[in-house]
Amino acid sequence: MTTPGLAAGIDVGGTKILGVVVDAAGRTVAETRRPTPRGTPALIDDLVATADELVASVGAVDGIGVGVPGLITTAGTLRSSPNLPGIERLDVAGELATRLARPVAVGNDATCATLAEWQLGAGRGVDDLVLVTLGTGIGGGIVTGGRLVVGANGFAGEFGHMVVDPNGLRCPCGRRGCWERYASGSGISALARNDALAGGLSAVVERAGGDAALVRGEHVQAAALEGDVDALDVVDQFARWVAIGLANLTNAFDPAAFVLGGGLAVGADVFLEPIQRWFTATLYAPEHRPHPALTFATLGEHAGAIGAALLTR
Amino acid sequence: MTTPGLAAGIDVGGTKILGVVVDAAGRTVAETRRPTPRGTPALIDDLVATADELVASVGAVDGIGVGVPGLITTAGTLRSSPNLPGIERLDVAGELATRLARPVAVGNDATCATLAEWQLGAGRGVDDLVLVTLGTGIGGGIVTGGRLVVGANGFAGEFGHMVVDPNGLRCPCGRRGCWERYASGSGISALARNDALAGGLSAVVERAGGDAALVRGEHVQAAALEGDVDALDVVDQFARWVAIGLANLTNAFDPAAFVLGGGLAVGADVFLEPIQRWFTATLYAPEHRPHPALTFATLGEHAGAIGAALLTR
Repeated sequence: MTTPGLAAGIDVGGTKILGVVVDAAGRTVAETRRPTPRGTPALIDDLVATADELVASVGAVDGIGVGVPGLITTAGTLRSSPNLPGIERLDVAGELATRLARPVAVGNDATCATLAEWQLGAGRGVDDLVLVTLGTGIGGGIVTGGRLVVGANGFAGEFGHMVVDPNGLRCPCGRRGCWERYASGSGISALARNDALAGGLSAVVERAGGDAALVRGEHVQAAALEGDVDALDVVDQFARWVAIGLANLTNAFDPAAFVLGGGLAVGADVFLEPIQRWFTATLYAPEHRPHPALTFATLGEHAGAIGAALLTR
Repeated sequence: MTTPGLAAGIDVGGTKILGVVVDAAGRTVAETRRPTPRGTPALIDDLVATADELVASVGAVDGIGVGVPGLITTAGTLRSSPNLPGIERLDVAGELATRLARPVAVGNDATCATLAEWQLGAGRGVDDLVLVTLGTGIGGGIVTGGRLVVGANGFAGEFGHMVVDPNGLRCPCGRRGCWERYASGSGISALARNDALAGGLSAVVERAGGDAALVRGEHVQAAALEGDVDALDVVDQFARWVAIGLANLTNAFDPAAFVLGGGLAVGADVFLEPIQRWFTATLYAPEHRPHPALTFATLGEHAGAIGAALLTR
């Protein structure tokens, strides 16, 4: 016996493939995961296996969606993906449709997460919102006027490579001063290591096992939560960079809310006040406008897979 | 005798009020202009007089729209406008509706220009486009998925205050490094004066009557058009800043085309090649994506007024 309204969603991450089945009410009724393999044939095989497993676990589904990191065309071709080395110009939608003998919806992973948080998570009921995932890098997605924005090619929401300092830090993408050099997990880690290698941040270095070179964002967060002044200073520098990007996005989109996701949104309490303070200092005409709400994603690591399922509707 | 499908549009600029009547086919069939007065009562009086004159000139119109510079709420209240000193928190839509005894549509002037260029100008038939007006400052507007983006409050498209260098030049808005400090008419003038006051740019200074302090963007453009190497260098610096902002907007919106308007779009030939070159150097993953077309606005100074008329439809 099968239930109508079920949809399968699969999120391809840099390290794992996470699959879910979502019912008509948005509840997750099945889940599976496996490591992300290397190379195109193995990736397609594992996506097929994940889809088969999900379908078998519930009997049948009305649709299958897949979220993939990188530049994904609206037709479901992966153009380029820094998180999936060696995979380029892959017709994900076409390959899967052939193997599974049914249409498969394919979208960018952050766009999927945006859809999920908007319809079922922190952004429910908000017609104008911007999702920003602060993880190793920065991804994002946009809803304006109650509609998901995908752009002319499907590439909208690549906020991480917004240039915020043209003479700033080198980015692996080849440019300088991309937002994700500063406002991501890598960004806060780099800020902290700078201070630590210069002999500061003793409480943070201690949490990194005494090695300044191993200092990461989570050590800063932990020390800041306990009120360590040096850690709070790093948090403040980091918050300024986050706020600069959020203010730029507000000037452009005028959202009613931001949904912040990604690894840094866990334990986000320590960031909220300084981000809000710097945001007000950076936004154009802050006294003449309502400020967007800063909220945190509620669907956690499942957002991408749930959103991929919602893509099919 | 009146013609069905006529709409009046009025654009309030910093120096002039321009009114038009547009017919159902998008043709401008009447036009009037007067200087922008100082102060709220005079502004409302002159908008009423402009509307009355336009209506009288064609017998009757189906709707009246007004475009105003600054932050305009979706309900038609002007929150703040750097170009209309002393006017703040003015319910433009309400005041005009009372005086004219009919509803009046009110929107941001750059949003109106975007609507006009999209429906009748350079962006016709493009579902995903971004308009950027490079004038004294920078304004803009967005169309995604075939719909005009206004944002949660009506404030979308304030690209000029996107921060592109947090430790950069001071902006009258109170922040540092806003895009319009660099990529506008004021920006190219400042770049040129820097070089001129340091003793360079002789061909450009000559065009400014021999006074380095009077050098403006138009002098640079003129000298660059004649191949002056120093002027071309200023154009190149300027083009880099324009491209940084356009690349940021492309990462965010993924438009199929930009429509560049404003004073600098006149005689734009000299800017196009360097902007495109720097754009490719700044865009994320340029080899994996179609680049948006860089086009120039075709409705000139009438775009705002025509768009205000289109607002009523």
